[in-house]
Amino acid sequence: MYVIMVYDVNVKRVVKVLKVGRKYLEHVQNSVLEGELSPAQYKKLKHEVEKTIDPEEDTVRFYLLRTTRYLTTEELGLPSRNEPDSSFL
Amino acid sequence: MYVIMVYDVNVKRVVKVLKVGRKYLEHVQNSVLEGELSPAQYKKLKHEVEKTIDPEEDTVRFYLLRTTRYLTTEELGLPSRNEPDSSFL
Repeated sequence: MYVIMVYDVNVKRVVKVLKVGRKYLEHVQNSVLEGELSPAQYKKLKHEVEKTIDPEEDTVRFYLLRTTRYLTTEELGLPSRNEPDSSFL
Repeated sequence: MYVIMVYDVNVKRVVKVLKVGRKYLEHVQNSVLEGELSPAQYKKLKHEVEKTIDPEEDTVRFYLLRTTRYLTTEELGLPSRNEPDSSFL
């Protein structure tokens, strides 16, 4: 499944959350990562993020797409950091 | 189509970009908006955002889903600002 992860976390934890996220996903924009994961990988990612954030202060949102067939991505302004797999663009 | 808008813009323009975004979409998390738009509404949103950002400094990314049938959203930590239409959760 294709996973888009967006996060709004306390500045004290941003580096750690990003570090965890980049183990699994592509960092495409400030506070946004995305990539193809197996259910098992996604479960591990979620577990690691859960251990990293403070649930009282931080928010992490995952968009899970069982297929990218109906997804198009468009951008305005500066191109993202590292273009994700362009096969779905 | 369902639109997810994520943005990374200079702090001088954040309020303006958010103001434009909220005319069309639900503000669910810091720098993240989402909602159902017609192609015409999306075109207008993109045009207004284009006029608001500095393409040399800012990045705005749109994920366009022609259907939400294959989309699931999950969250960790604090719930999002205003829960979007939960029909697709």
